[in-house]
Amino acid sequence: MPTPPVEYKDAPPEVRAVFDDIKSSRNVPDVNNFWKYLAHDPAGLKRTWESLKQVMAPGALDPLTKEMIYLAVSVSNGCGYCIASHTAGARKAGMDGAMFSELMAVVGMANETNRLVQGYRVPIDKAFE
Amino acid sequence: MPTPPVEYKDAPPEVRAVFDDIKSSRNVPDVNNFWKYLAHDPAGLKRTWESLKQVMAPGALDPLTKEMIYLAVSVSNGCGYCIASHTAGARKAGMDGAMFSELMAVVGMANETNRLVQGYRVPIDKAFE
Amino acid sequence: MPTPPVEYKDAPPEVRAVFDDIKSSRNVPDVNNFWKYLAHDPAGLKRTWESLKQVMAPGALDPLTKEMIYLAVSVSNGCGYCIASHTAGARKAGMDGAMFSELMAVVGMANETNRLVQGYRVPIDKAFE
Amino acid sequence: MPTPPVEYKDAPPEVRAVFDDIKSSRNVPDVNNFWKYLAHDPAGLKRTWESLKQVMAPGALDPLTKEMIYLAVSVSNGCGYCIASHTAGARKAGMDGAMFSELMAVVGMANETNRLVQGYRVPIDKAFE
Amino acid sequence: MPTPPVEYKDAPPEVRAVFDDIKSSRNVPDVNNFWKYLAHDPAGLKRTWESLKQVMAPGALDPLTKEMIYLAVSVSNGCGYCIASHTAGARKAGMDGAMFSELMAVVGMANETNRLVQGYRVPIDKAFE
Amino acid sequence: MPTPPVEYKDAPPEVRAVFDDIKSSRNVPDVNNFWKYLAHDPAGLKRTWESLKQVMAPGALDPLTKEMIYLAVSVSNGCGYCIASHTAGARKAGMDGAMFSELMAVVGMANETNRLVQGYRVPIDKAFE
Repeated sequence: MPTPPVEYKDAPPEVRAVFDDIKSSRNVPDVNNFWKYLAHDPAGLKRTWESLKQVMAPGALDPLTKEMIYLAVSVSNGCGYCIASHTAGARKAGMDGAMFSELMAVVGMANETNRLVQGYRVPIDKAFE
Repeated sequence: MPTPPVEYKDAPPEVRAVFDDIKSSRNVPDVNNFWKYLAHDPAGLKRTWESLKQVMAPGALDPLTKEMIYLAVSVSNGCGYCIASHTAGARKAGMDGAMFSELMAVVGMANETNRLVQGYRVPIDKAFE
Repeated sequence: MPTPPVEYKDAPPEVRAVFDDIKSSRNVPDVNNFWKYLAHDPAGLKRTWESLKQVMAPGALDPLTKEMIYLAVSVSNGCGYCIASHTAGARKAGMDGAMFSELMAVVGMANETNRLVQGYRVPIDKAFE
Repeated sequence: MPTPPVEYKDAPPEVRAVFDDIKSSRNVPDVNNFWKYLAHDPAGLKRTWESLKQVMAPGALDPLTKEMIYLAVSVSNGCGYCIASHTAGARKAGMDGAMFSELMAVVGMANETNRLVQGYRVPIDKAFE
Repeated sequence: MPTPPVEYKDAPPEVRAVFDDIKSSRNVPDVNNFWKYLAHDPAGLKRTWESLKQVMAPGALDPLTKEMIYLAVSVSNGCGYCIASHTAGARKAGMDGAMFSELMAVVGMANETNRLVQGYRVPIDKAFE
Repeated sequence: MPTPPVEYKDAPPEVRAVFDDIKSSRNVPDVNNFWKYLAHDPAGLKRTWESLKQVMAPGALDPLTKEMIYLAVSVSNGCGYCIASHTAGARKAGMDGAMFSELMAVVGMANETNRLVQGYRVPIDKAFE
């Protein structure tokens, strides 16, 4: 049987501290299931959240672009939960339906041509080396 | 032995027509190896180029964002040729070193959390269904 | 529609022989669904079971380590059934919650750094060649 | 450093027996590198060769179809060695250039639509359940 | 929440035209869910259908072989919807239970040996270069 | 062209600090290429190294088991650099040739059965839910 999620009321202080930071950073009333399951590993929960917060912060790329890249990888990996949560995340950051469709079309073409390249055993152009 | 690439001077007219369109669309003196190998399948060459041209055209997403999404998928799939060519493509479209590093960090985190989600068997939150 | 599973009572003798061997080897009252579906291919059932029995037997690596490696690959491939059954298998062989969390953390980091390596196009160190 | 291949002259009897069977089954003067590396695990070598011989034998599917399916999977997994060896194997079994191009086009489309399906979160049609 | 499918009665003319072509080409009363979801991107719907129709048409490979290759890739990628729909497609084109089992066995072996090759770091044989 | 690696002598102080910690933690005279490339992103370098150090530290699992899990995932993902470096890492931690062969056999079987499970569309056993 799968491990049940860790709810806030049952969580030890170090887990609550991370949950609190997620809720205030994202301005949400509760954390997603992902964090409630990862909470079985408090050190991993803290490390993953802090890494994610750092990686997804606005920088040279804006948050919407980052969310769309995250979604593109999740689609390419076929992770159902991740597709659902990062589609929601990207929409919240500003992705509309037309942008989603174009993102999907790019992901589809990339998966197609990645395999064509490998199957035809195409050597790297000198200009790219 | 692998199939040798098809060079312009040896190409049949329908392949030359696609090569000409690639060169003028991209303003380059010659096409990349990918197209020279795919040219063994003239119908596939034409279909792939026309699909790519349509998908990568500016629309709801700008060309730089599209190139970065293409690169993110190629990295996640581990396609060496594709990583080389789309890194070049994204740089040409405006990606600098800081943007590349942030893109890579997002791709890395997405691959990590995609697997954590699947391993912990996290059910999709009601809010995402 | 998917093929229905083959139950013991309906199975031909060569399938029953494999089912009997699985049950006695594992000391379980019935075989898992995997074997009931694979039983549509009696030769494949026998080959797969015999390969698995040989590969998973104690040897230079102990059964717990082997089950955890199996689980790590299944998580990395995102196979839901395999994650469920090999989490159960590893727990039966001695994996506790802390070991599972550390295994997951390693799988997550490996997926992250595998992609960073490919994206940055890191050449193999002379020392590793 | 990688493990060096096991050559026939240095191989123990149980490895030579497998090498001999590969050579006579395929009517070739020497085995491919794959078998020479796997020979470091004589039990694994024997098991893998016997499984492969059984799986690739003519049956409900002919050898050419089986080689093309093997190649399709190898392309989709991006395994360079496997693409090279199974392209050779499929050509030997009768695949010409036009067949290869069509196989590649199917592999490309399958990879594209697999991802579109997952990204759009398409539920399975009742008719397929 | 996921995007709802686009039904024929609610579809704009350019989507209806594609749906009509799918229905008449395949001689079916309605299109599969895949097309109803993709219809949110009318240009992508048209491009994907036209590419698929061209790629899957009888040519150097017959439709059954193409459907089985499509299925092999979908199994290897773990796409549940695609496995369901292309199993149905391959059965309609003539795949019986014995052919399916052999196809699955080949896909399984290919995935196994692809990884063995990569783990043992097997260099490509001169004969394949 | 790919980004050149960052050598210690050319590195800014925050990169040198990470390189120094890697060298002293691992008791090696220089860092691997991976770190020299990642050094183009000093924040990512520091985050990745600190995460890796935490994840790979002895805990509920010993370092050898962790290195073998890391290697198993890298083989399954087909990352050549990662296979080379983590084979070296696992050997240093105590993996001998027999252990490597058994690890590879498990990775191979897991990849095979993961796909069989998905192709046969096997539902999860009640006992595993």
